[in-house]
Amino acid sequence: MDRKALYNLEYGVFLVASKDGDRINGCITNTCIQAAANPVRLAIACINGNYTPELIKKSGLFTVSVLDKSVSFDTIRQFGMQSGRDTDKFAGQKYALDDNGVPFLTENANAVFSCRVTGSTDLGSHTLFIGEVLDAKVLSGEKSLTYAYYQSDVKPRPAAKAAEKKIIGWKCKICGYTYEGAELPADFLCPLCGHPAEDFEPIYG
Amino acid sequence: MDRKALYNLEYGVFLVASKDGDRINGCITNTCIQAAANPVRLAIACINGNYTPELIKKSGLFTVSVLDKSVSFDTIRQFGMQSGRDTDKFAGQKYALDDNGVPFLTENANAVFSCRVTGSTDLGSHTLFIGEVLDAKVLSGEKSLTYAYYQSDVKPRPAAKAAEKKIIGWKCKICGYTYEGAELPADFLCPLCGHPAEDFEPIYG
Repeated sequence: MDRKALYNLEYGVFLVASKDGDRINGCITNTCIQAAANPVRLAIACINGNYTPELIKKSGLFTVSVLDKSVSFDTIRQFGMQSGRDTDKFAGQKYALDDNGVPFLTENANAVFSCRVTGSTDLGSHTLFIGEVLDAKVLSGEKSLTYAYYQSDVKPRPAAKAAEKKIIGWKCKICGYTYEGAELPADFLCPLCGHPAEDFEPIYG
Repeated sequence: MDRKALYNLEYGVFLVASKDGDRINGCITNTCIQAAANPVRLAIACINGNYTPELIKKSGLFTVSVLDKSVSFDTIRQFGMQSGRDTDKFAGQKYALDDNGVPFLTENANAVFSCRVTGSTDLGSHTLFIGEVLDAKVLSGEKSLTYAYYQSDVKPRPAAKAAEKKIIGWKCKICGYTYEGAELPADFLCPLCGHPAEDFEPIYG
């Protein structure tokens, strides 16, 4: 199997958010599709072990904020590369709550869907949630961020002289997990999201 | 609910194909995501009533050909706007069979995934299939077709003088279903894919 074939799948980039009581949290995903009509339902895949799918399982509610091209890498990093168990990811972000009290972005997103879970499948590395769309709003006319555009234009480029610096660790480009050490074993699999060594990028000291 | 929010979801465009004995068939979908890792699994949504999901349910096998920007509207129409119950959709197309005998495109596609169904959920209008990826190949360096690019650059524009012609029917832009009659009721929902009147375009006589 040539895993590079997976890079040819086209995706948007989304903030999936949920709540449990007063706790709110969100995470970044590139997997959201309309799965059915009458009623409209979305399917999203979330990495198991993350805090957001835990909240979704508790409340049965989630929002999908469709990120647009105005989003900065800082916002992606704030939501995508730390855990909401330890920090308030929405601190400093412009957001609102939907009718069920679930947060969504009011900046850097061109649409939002408020969903109630109608089904879920645990796939080991991820849980696939099916959510009925209770409400949907267009938030701006900005174009949607694509995963390809995120990779080419939003994510910072490694510094030109990076090769001269010392490698002190490796970061998973998919979920942000960091491996400490100069040499990443070729058969390494990310313990968080299961992606292989080729999906890691060096961290320079 | 503002259904236009759904237009902000980004998609690729795919040929999903299957077989049953000697019968092979395929249909166009814009919903394919990687849903999980270890093993890699894809999720696809297929319109119920179509012939291809019927074959997938019988054989438990499918391929996903990732359409690239070289594809013509004729190929999209051949696979997407007629039923394989009545015709051999692969006639005249360049294709091959994978190890399980399931067809995939060898032209106009930049990657192919061979999958075995590991789960499915009937969502009424659609069935969501989860398939374990048995094999994956990169077929070309051509860029993937996006649904947005299909809408803007692949699909023929209505003729400039179309407005002067007589409307004799309406075609669903999503699945190709045709409604006969000059006036489409504003609350009409496509009986095949459930999309509303605003997703229909006029057919001129």
